Amino acid sequence: MAQEKYIFMLEMKVRDYEIDSEGIVNNANYLHYLEHTRHEFCNMAGFSFRKMQENGIDPVLNRIEVDYKTPLRSGDVMLSKLWVEMKGVRFIFHQEIYNKMTGELSIKALVSCVCLEGGKLSRGEVLAEAFKQYL
Amino acid sequence: MAQEKYIFMLEMKVRDYEIDSEGIVNNANYLHYLEHTRHEFCNMAGFSFRKMQENGIDPVLNRIEVDYKTPLRSGDVMLSKLWVEMKGVRFIFHQEIYNKMTGELSIKALVSCVCLEGGKLSRGEVLAEAFKQYL
Amino acid sequence: MAQEKYIFMLEMKVRDYEIDSEGIVNNANYLHYLEHTRHEFCNMAGFSFRKMQENGIDPVLNRIEVDYKTPLRSGDVMLSKLWVEMKGVRFIFHQEIYNKMTGELSIKALVSCVCLEGGKLSRGEVLAEAFKQYL
Amino acid sequence: MAQEKYIFMLEMKVRDYEIDSEGIVNNANYLHYLEHTRHEFCNMAGFSFRKMQENGIDPVLNRIEVDYKTPLRSGDVMLSKLWVEMKGVRFIFHQEIYNKMTGELSIKALVSCVCLEGGKLSRGEVLAEAFKQYL
Repeated sequence: MAQEKYIFMLEMKVRDYEIDSEGIVNNANYLHYLEHTRHEFCNMAGFSFRKMQENGIDPVLNRIEVDYKTPLRSGDVMLSKLWVEMKGVRFIFHQEIYNKMTGELSIKALVSCVCLEGGKLSRGEVLAEAFKQYL
Repeated sequence: MAQEKYIFMLEMKVRDYEIDSEGIVNNANYLHYLEHTRHEFCNMAGFSFRKMQENGIDPVLNRIEVDYKTPLRSGDVMLSKLWVEMKGVRFIFHQEIYNKMTGELSIKALVSCVCLEGGKLSRGEVLAEAFKQYL
Repeated sequence: MAQEKYIFMLEMKVRDYEIDSEGIVNNANYLHYLEHTRHEFCNMAGFSFRKMQENGIDPVLNRIEVDYKTPLRSGDVMLSKLWVEMKGVRFIFHQEIYNKMTGELSIKALVSCVCLEGGKLSRGEVLAEAFKQYL
Repeated sequence: MAQEKYIFMLEMKVRDYEIDSEGIVNNANYLHYLEHTRHEFCNMAGFSFRKMQENGIDPVLNRIEVDYKTPLRSGDVMLSKLWVEMKGVRFIFHQEIYNKMTGELSIKALVSCVCLEGGKLSRGEVLAEAFKQYL
């Protein structure tokens, strides 16, 4: 069910420098995967990170929750999915990363962002407008 | 009050390559700071990550929660603190990072780890024994 | 002319976390791009990094030279090319990264590797055999 | 002899997330160590990277050469040294990283930078003036 909510998917391959001495992707690198997925979603929606900055909008993370399920390893290909909702001034990204080959869930994350405009908390109308078809 | 529980503190300076195009430390790098703090705590407690691996113990993260409060910037020095408790087979690390200069809380995190021995979930007795004076 | 020598090409997109506070890809990240290109070349040639390690072969860098020409920025797509030759026990990778959109050369690198087998310098026969059609 | 030329030294400890699946510091991370050493030298000389940017000066790398001698591993402490000279418009940093415990040379590097002012190549007078006692 929940699956059906996903509105964007990005395929990425693990790069060997992302692997640590335990032979698995280091925990911090999943945040890189999640961020890159969000930024590519924004690009697709017509609002690149660069364009936001030029418009004086700085999206910043205020909370992240990650459940690590099955580690990714050298050579693995992942499918990184997201859907997004607004709660007050916050954009809540629901993200999951799957191992493409095995279909196993690798991580499940909840990422909460707010927008700053001119350094101050904004109500996020510009992005809400840009993303309205996805919310 | 909570402050008094902290049993380990590490001072680190932000490195400029950890800063992203918004001029603040990238969200994933805080997980690096948190991990390095945990590993240095383990070293202090006499059980380095390398030694764990030689003993066939693989500590792995199963969940992380981070609240991002005040971003760190170029030149900032941080104080990274932790305390740890056991809940069943999980080690729960309570971690906070402060800006040393301003005293502001930068992030607050809850990191949950389990131990694998020979690839299987262990009850963590070896580490629990090693850390007993800190639990 | 030199162009014609290239035997492998990988397309990658810059990820925003690779950008530093100057708005350009941080110098160290190009080494990640170069490494990932070499590893994908090895995969294509049928000898993954993981497989090498299982065979007791550890390829290690002994020298790198990089000329930084035109910086890559947020949103840029790169074409990363290589060719390889053997000089004694060393594998010399000639690598270039181009901005796909503009065609400009971004960096040009020379990467020298040797193989360790059981921790000792090897003459590299196993890899030389595996790569013979590319040398 | 050459040793005596070094005018700045920084001590750093390897962090476990910098280690790759071969159990050694990943080749790209040495560029992070080298950069952090240069920036800390600039801070010491009274000209932080942030201050340069506020003054419209963007130092950019144009070439790097690294000889990898002895890999650093988990738990190692390094001594990172540099001296600098001007050649035309280029600042040439001579950098070496030693394993503090064993005294072994880990890497030796030559890093060439130029300064951009308002996006254009500058003759670097501002930095040359700031660094004159070190040149």
